[in-house]
Amino acid sequence: MTGPIVPHLMTLADLSVPQLKRLLAHSHYLKQVSLPWLEPQGPAYQKKSSKLRLPSQSLFNKTIALLFSKRSTRTRLSAETSAVLLGGRALFLGREDIQLGVNESPRDTARVIGGMCQGIFARVGEHEEIEELAKYSPVPVLNALSSLWHPTQILADLLTLHENAHLFEPDATAPSIDKRAAYKNTLPELRPLTVAYVGDSANVLHDMLVTYPRLGHKLRVASPEQYRAPTEVWNRVKELECDKGIWWGSDPKEAVQGADVVVTDTWISMGQEAEKAERLKAFAGYQVTEDLCREGGANPNWKFLHCLPRKQDEVDDEVFYGPRSLAFPEADNRKWTIMAIFDLLFGKWNISAESQSLDGKVSK
Amino acid sequence: MTGPIVPHLMTLADLSVPQLKRLLAHSHYLKQVSLPWLEPQGPAYQKKSSKLRLPSQSLFNKTIALLFSKRSTRTRLSAETSAVLLGGRALFLGREDIQLGVNESPRDTARVIGGMCQGIFARVGEHEEIEELAKYSPVPVLNALSSLWHPTQILADLLTLHENAHLFEPDATAPSIDKRAAYKNTLPELRPLTVAYVGDSANVLHDMLVTYPRLGHKLRVASPEQYRAPTEVWNRVKELECDKGIWWGSDPKEAVQGADVVVTDTWISMGQEAEKAERLKAFAGYQVTEDLCREGGANPNWKFLHCLPRKQDEVDDEVFYGPRSLAFPEADNRKWTIMAIFDLLFGKWNISAESQSLDGKVSK
Amino acid sequence: MTGPIVPHLMTLADLSVPQLKRLLAHSHYLKQVSLPWLEPQGPAYQKKSSKLRLPSQSLFNKTIALLFSKRSTRTRLSAETSAVLLGGRALFLGREDIQLGVNESPRDTARVIGGMCQGIFARVGEHEEIEELAKYSPVPVLNALSSLWHPTQILADLLTLHENAHLFEPDATAPSIDKRAAYKNTLPELRPLTVAYVGDSANVLHDMLVTYPRLGHKLRVASPEQYRAPTEVWNRVKELECDKGIWWGSDPKEAVQGADVVVTDTWISMGQEAEKAERLKAFAGYQVTEDLCREGGANPNWKFLHCLPRKQDEVDDEVFYGPRSLAFPEADNRKWTIMAIFDLLFGKWNISAESQSLDGKVSK
Repeated sequence: MTGPIVPHLMTLADLSVPQLKRLLAHSHYLKQVSLPWLEPQGPAYQKKSSKLRLPSQSLFNKTIALLFSKRSTRTRLSAETSAVLLGGRALFLGREDIQLGVNESPRDTARVIGGMCQGIFARVGEHEEIEELAKYSPVPVLNALSSLWHPTQILADLLTLHENAHLFEPDATAPSIDKRAAYKNTLPELRPLTVAYVGDSANVLHDMLVTYPRLGHKLRVASPEQYRAPTEVWNRVKELECDKGIWWGSDPKEAVQGADVVVTDTWISMGQEAEKAERLKAFAGYQVTEDLCREGGANPNWKFLHCLPRKQDEVDDEVFYGPRSLAFPEADNRKWTIMAIFDLLFGKWNISAESQSLDGKVSK
Repeated sequence: MTGPIVPHLMTLADLSVPQLKRLLAHSHYLKQVSLPWLEPQGPAYQKKSSKLRLPSQSLFNKTIALLFSKRSTRTRLSAETSAVLLGGRALFLGREDIQLGVNESPRDTARVIGGMCQGIFARVGEHEEIEELAKYSPVPVLNALSSLWHPTQILADLLTLHENAHLFEPDATAPSIDKRAAYKNTLPELRPLTVAYVGDSANVLHDMLVTYPRLGHKLRVASPEQYRAPTEVWNRVKELECDKGIWWGSDPKEAVQGADVVVTDTWISMGQEAEKAERLKAFAGYQVTEDLCREGGANPNWKFLHCLPRKQDEVDDEVFYGPRSLAFPEADNRKWTIMAIFDLLFGKWNISAESQSLDGKVSK
Repeated sequence: MTGPIVPHLMTLADLSVPQLKRLLAHSHYLKQVSLPWLEPQGPAYQKKSSKLRLPSQSLFNKTIALLFSKRSTRTRLSAETSAVLLGGRALFLGREDIQLGVNESPRDTARVIGGMCQGIFARVGEHEEIEELAKYSPVPVLNALSSLWHPTQILADLLTLHENAHLFEPDATAPSIDKRAAYKNTLPELRPLTVAYVGDSANVLHDMLVTYPRLGHKLRVASPEQYRAPTEVWNRVKELECDKGIWWGSDPKEAVQGADVVVTDTWISMGQEAEKAERLKAFAGYQVTEDLCREGGANPNWKFLHCLPRKQDEVDDEVFYGPRSLAFPEADNRKWTIMAIFDLLFGKWNISAESQSLDGKVSK
């Protein structure tokens, strides 16, 4: 018996523009359906809950393995809490639980875990490791973070920008949302933005490079010359014709010119602690501040994104805790975007197919 | 949008006497409703289960984060198993998973976890850490143990004493309980007791100090002079006028005089291993034994409590495994009292409000 | 109040032949009922799922403690995923979470965990440790692996052989299975086989020794003379009159003579890394290969089993990844056999009693 081809997701470069839009709309929908369940139960709750719709229960009776060779608070919590909402369970396996390739080959591990669980959400070191898992797993493999890509982060960023689309309009009034009926609302449209990334060229940026230009946004990147995306990433960027939408330099001020959104990330990722002094030197002048953006000529109304955890090196308190910062809503949206991928990829094996409808009619 | 004030629970000193009584009654109720579900399923089970009432499902679809910087078998198991009964899930995050304040500020961690989970049950080192979490968390924070307080332990002790109230009556007959109808039974009243604490003045004792006197019980404490409650604790004791009900000395025999209940705890808490020799010397003569209590003039019918894990230093086998010991029922009751707080604090945000009814009418 | 005697399972030697057959049939049944739930949800799913039968929900509202002092991917995943299918939850406690006998006595730990959870699935070091847990636990204890026994592995092996019974028939055609109606199918009968074990005499072999001969199969074992089953194991073998069905030598070629199935295991178990060089020498010539089995005169149609994780030392790639290998279906069956024991032992306390019916009528 040969079954259907197993879908995997390694980077957003694997998805078409309609698929990306579908995922964002589905995230928005699942968020609206789920939030009322998470409120404190009051005396009126019993009455109300009988009227609440359950989100898709596509993980009912199922278990998703979280194969995490590195710690990850946001990604892990998103996975574990959204699996609950989808009726299933996430099973966390950390460095202490399983050491990929040490006691048995990644090939055998993929086959064994895939024989017991209905999906593998893997945070590995080198990107080849997750490719190896995907090659042999009988169930979908989703990239939770690798040396090259970080697809789930960029979906969260995009959902956050869409939800806050009104902030980028001349008349920045928040739309009134009827919370109870919110699942009927569609995700707000977002005007073409100029997005500046100021910092290390790492997995977060790589998925931005293959995604933002295809959605009509301009990318302006400043990173020290020695830290640039590797060839594998550039090949995907060119393949998708994203390079035309990207400006790249090493001057942060030049990068933020006209920016509607300024994004950064830690300068010293896990495992790079030894290079700390060298990196701090390379990134001198890269801290995101009000001054930097004013001097660089950002849109006066610019907003700030950060995937967290945050250090003061890359952004000061004024920006990070101030009204420009969308960093915490962005963190919250890790959950809803991961929930959407879990539903479509692990629950329905249907992330690669185009589907007419993403609302209540498809998800049970 | 400003929501309702988020309720937290740091110590039993935060609760009024009616709130304490409410929590104990609710623990008793949830225990009676839950126990029949935990029995082995026999052939008659299917028939029976259709008649069983579910406990409150106030955590349905929800996840509670267990943020434990120290190991804790009883507290953790209580949380994880009772979350299941409340329809939800506990998500354990240990030292390996998250190091508070190392990779990101406690402020950011509180906001991020609180954006994904519906409650934070935190076992920290210094008490200030949990205060910091509570300050920034958008969801309730419950103290699972800190350097200063241990509120959930004392609730379990009180539930155990109430359930065994008949042991302290002249005619110590156990009341006959119709198990099936037990949830109709109210928690037995407890006569005013004399409770002796013999040992280290630590978080367990601190929550006794702010609670027992308010419920009409006398406290007699023996601890070496160098190990006494810090000023912060004494301020709460005085604020609540509990000091009148407390006798404090350094002679264990004097402390157990007239005692209905003798309580102790380990002399060497986690992190104090270096002080072991010094501490063993300071506590010489403090081991709870039949001899000590007879010579000190305890009530001949005295009972024994211990929060576990137990070492032989502080209590001998004769007492610990003998008929006076309520230590294991006390451990079991960690579960039911934690379940009650989870329901009211995390599920309903309603621990601080007075409520007329704690029986089936309030909890779904 | 004295309750019913608590059933435990330390080795398959504890079970009668009818009980063994019952467990295998129940595993097969639960697998057939569960598999349709684990498929990707398509558009037709909602309609279909209303017709699917739930497997036994005997763990509903319950929690099973996994007390694992050693890592174990297959055993752990089997337990965690099948608890979900039975409506309950497995709670993993590893070396980092609990150190048996370090902070408190195994006696106290057994009583405390057994007061909060409804079963203990324990992977210990020395077999005495699990005997100690069983002695004091108020709930059933199941051996997940000890120095002496590995009962759940042998059940998975037997289920795999039964499911592939047709491979051992002269006309090796796979039976056509109507998947939807599969739970009506009974487990295929298996003809008496000759099973060769080539390798280390450890816990996996020990449970084979007390089981295969009672089910009518011949065992042929090759192991270096210095690594043989200890007296405790031989006593159980003789007690059950299994010794007549066992041939034992030190020549692998002699062992595989007439073998229908060849089984091996790692030569260097966890904790034996220091003996590596010595062990590699002792097992020279023991690697399972096509040549070995042809030269030894195995049944030309021989099949291969391995409990995993696998090293190349004990079996080459040609055999392990070739068509003879049943190692991965065997791994998958860890889940279904553990699910059956969880249902009967933890959910129903009914593994030791004979029961007329194991199909849908017994399991809810």
